Amino acid sequence: MTAVVLSEELLHPASIKGRVDEIAGAFLAQKARDAKYRTFAGVLRSFLAAGGKRIRPVMCVLGWHAAGGGGDEQMVYRWATGLEMFHSFALIHDDLMDGSATRHGCPTVHLAMAGRHPGGPGSPAAEKFGRNSAILVGDLALVWADELMSADGGTVAQAMAAWPLLHAMRSEVMVGQYLDVSATGQQAISIEDALQIIRFKTAKYTIERPLQIGAALGGGDDELLQACSAVALPLGEAFQLRDDLLGVFGDRQRTGKPVVDDLREGKATVLLGLTYQRATAGQRATLQRLVGAPDLDEQGAAAVRHIMLGLGAPRAVENLISLRYQQALDELDRAPFRPAAARALRSMAETIVRRAA
Amino acid sequence: MTAVVLSEELLHPASIKGRVDEIAGAFLAQKARDAKYRTFAGVLRSFLAAGGKRIRPVMCVLGWHAAGGGGDEQMVYRWATGLEMFHSFALIHDDLMDGSATRHGCPTVHLAMAGRHPGGPGSPAAEKFGRNSAILVGDLALVWADELMSADGGTVAQAMAAWPLLHAMRSEVMVGQYLDVSATGQQAISIEDALQIIRFKTAKYTIERPLQIGAALGGGDDELLQACSAVALPLGEAFQLRDDLLGVFGDRQRTGKPVVDDLREGKATVLLGLTYQRATAGQRATLQRLVGAPDLDEQGAAAVRHIMLGLGAPRAVENLISLRYQQALDELDRAPFRPAAARALRSMAETIVRRAA
Repeated sequence: MTAVVLSEELLHPASIKGRVDEIAGAFLAQKARDAKYRTFAGVLRSFLAAGGKRIRPVMCVLGWHAAGGGGDEQMVYRWATGLEMFHSFALIHDDLMDGSATRHGCPTVHLAMAGRHPGGPGSPAAEKFGRNSAILVGDLALVWADELMSADGGTVAQAMAAWPLLHAMRSEVMVGQYLDVSATGQQAISIEDALQIIRFKTAKYTIERPLQIGAALGGGDDELLQACSAVALPLGEAFQLRDDLLGVFGDRQRTGKPVVDDLREGKATVLLGLTYQRATAGQRATLQRLVGAPDLDEQGAAAVRHIMLGLGAPRAVENLISLRYQQALDELDRAPFRPAAARALRSMAETIVRRAA
Repeated sequence: MTAVVLSEELLHPASIKGRVDEIAGAFLAQKARDAKYRTFAGVLRSFLAAGGKRIRPVMCVLGWHAAGGGGDEQMVYRWATGLEMFHSFALIHDDLMDGSATRHGCPTVHLAMAGRHPGGPGSPAAEKFGRNSAILVGDLALVWADELMSADGGTVAQAMAAWPLLHAMRSEVMVGQYLDVSATGQQAISIEDALQIIRFKTAKYTIERPLQIGAALGGGDDELLQACSAVALPLGEAFQLRDDLLGVFGDRQRTGKPVVDDLREGKATVLLGLTYQRATAGQRATLQRLVGAPDLDEQGAAAVRHIMLGLGAPRAVENLISLRYQQALDELDRAPFRPAAARALRSMAETIVRRAA
């Protein structure tokens, strides 16, 4: 274990993001040198360049610092980058499954690839090519994530501790996505079901597992990994609850995606569950007509928002967020983390919960 | 290195398949004990039970024996099983991309999953659910394949030798699929393009890399890995050329898939490339109207087969297969493989090249 004096700079999300983007860039540039990978590497480079908060890499690096920051730092950053590459896979497939048109203000991969087909935009052949390419680009991102994480460096003990957590993370996010896909478009989603989706799809995947993976790479023991969970799960739930609010009430200019998508798709959120729970029979009928309707327009979305606001659903979600935020802070006070890392996590928690995009 | 006297029984494909299926069954049964993975484990169990030749696991185990069969046998079988699980991923996504209705005589995963949706068969919601579930089931098979291969057992040296080959295999098959997706439905595919697709999509993926991975796990040196390539590439090309013939002229009862699919989809095969090369202007016009037409029926397919036969294209493909088969046998004679393993590979080569399903 190297006892480094921690400069706050090293723990700053922007600094972590910078290093991760550098490693991802170098990795993809090296792939692009091989002609057969050039197209894929280019698509993934553009995808990463379009935006993203790099929350998973930040959590991974903070987890490592929290556990003492022992061992090979470069290995930790490669894992952090691998988590982001895995996330690119997840988003590319997610956008395809949702039929989303934009991500970070840019066309989604399936649409961008459709645009490259000689069949011309909108032709069935071009659309099929776009969908199939997005499946393959996503698959390759998953495989390349593995490559980043299994590169040389670090000790066998570090890898042995981190792999089972990565395996768990990857299986859990598939389950979360499956629950999401199964519930989407169903009428009158319950709050319990929506919370379970949040737990797998976001809380564990976005916060808990990345934090634990970093901690494991840093030599954290079971008690420390438990503390990671205790902090991460409420924080991750708060993150997704905020995301769901932004998906309906957010500012398109800042989120980079249309705020009609979630409603048009009938996304099974706690916000929607709460709305159904409180709605009158008449309001339910309106919701069932509008939410999940493929042709839902801004006017229809405004009507749904009006019902939600009238029932106090967004305010109730804000309360759920506050409760979880407070719980995460309490757990942070108790956690046996290095103080500088705990401070960085506290500040990260605030950003996550208060963000407007 | 354990010097075992090799019983021929151990090298028999049916015996290898039996052990691999046992490991896969136990792995999925263990996953199914966790409620959240039950659906996925059940779908994958049915998928594997429906059929399949287990060529990749057989190649992996034979490669291991060819290199001397040193180290932990159980680890080799877990890798062999992991290769089959990875292949399930590849097939599930492939069936979705091709829009295939059956595989081994059973409904493909996207169709089977669509059938579970409350929306009822054929409804857009059920179809979307089927497609999205198939993406997720495939993704999870990929992730679980990794789990099988990274389980404890074996030495670090074994793993270090095998992982780069696995990484190469996984990236190459995505490239092969992408070349395939890009070429499918295009008019007048060239023989060179079709051969390049075959190389990545099949020869490297199905034969070369599994054989090399097994050899690397068995402690094979560079010379031995080179010999694996020299045998595997012509054999793998022969395998795919046979597959393409069966895809147009095969017996539906034996292949388990309709023999109109490849033509309806406009699959870019060497068979089709040769046909275009030899066709008259009139025949080309007919081919361009029929091949790749979404509504191609058995009568249209018969017309295409008639043109192909008249031009001697199937016979020319048979010649390409024979040439490659002979080349593989010559390389086998030269390869520094254990004699029992070389014999088993020779018999496997014959099966692969002469098969009718």
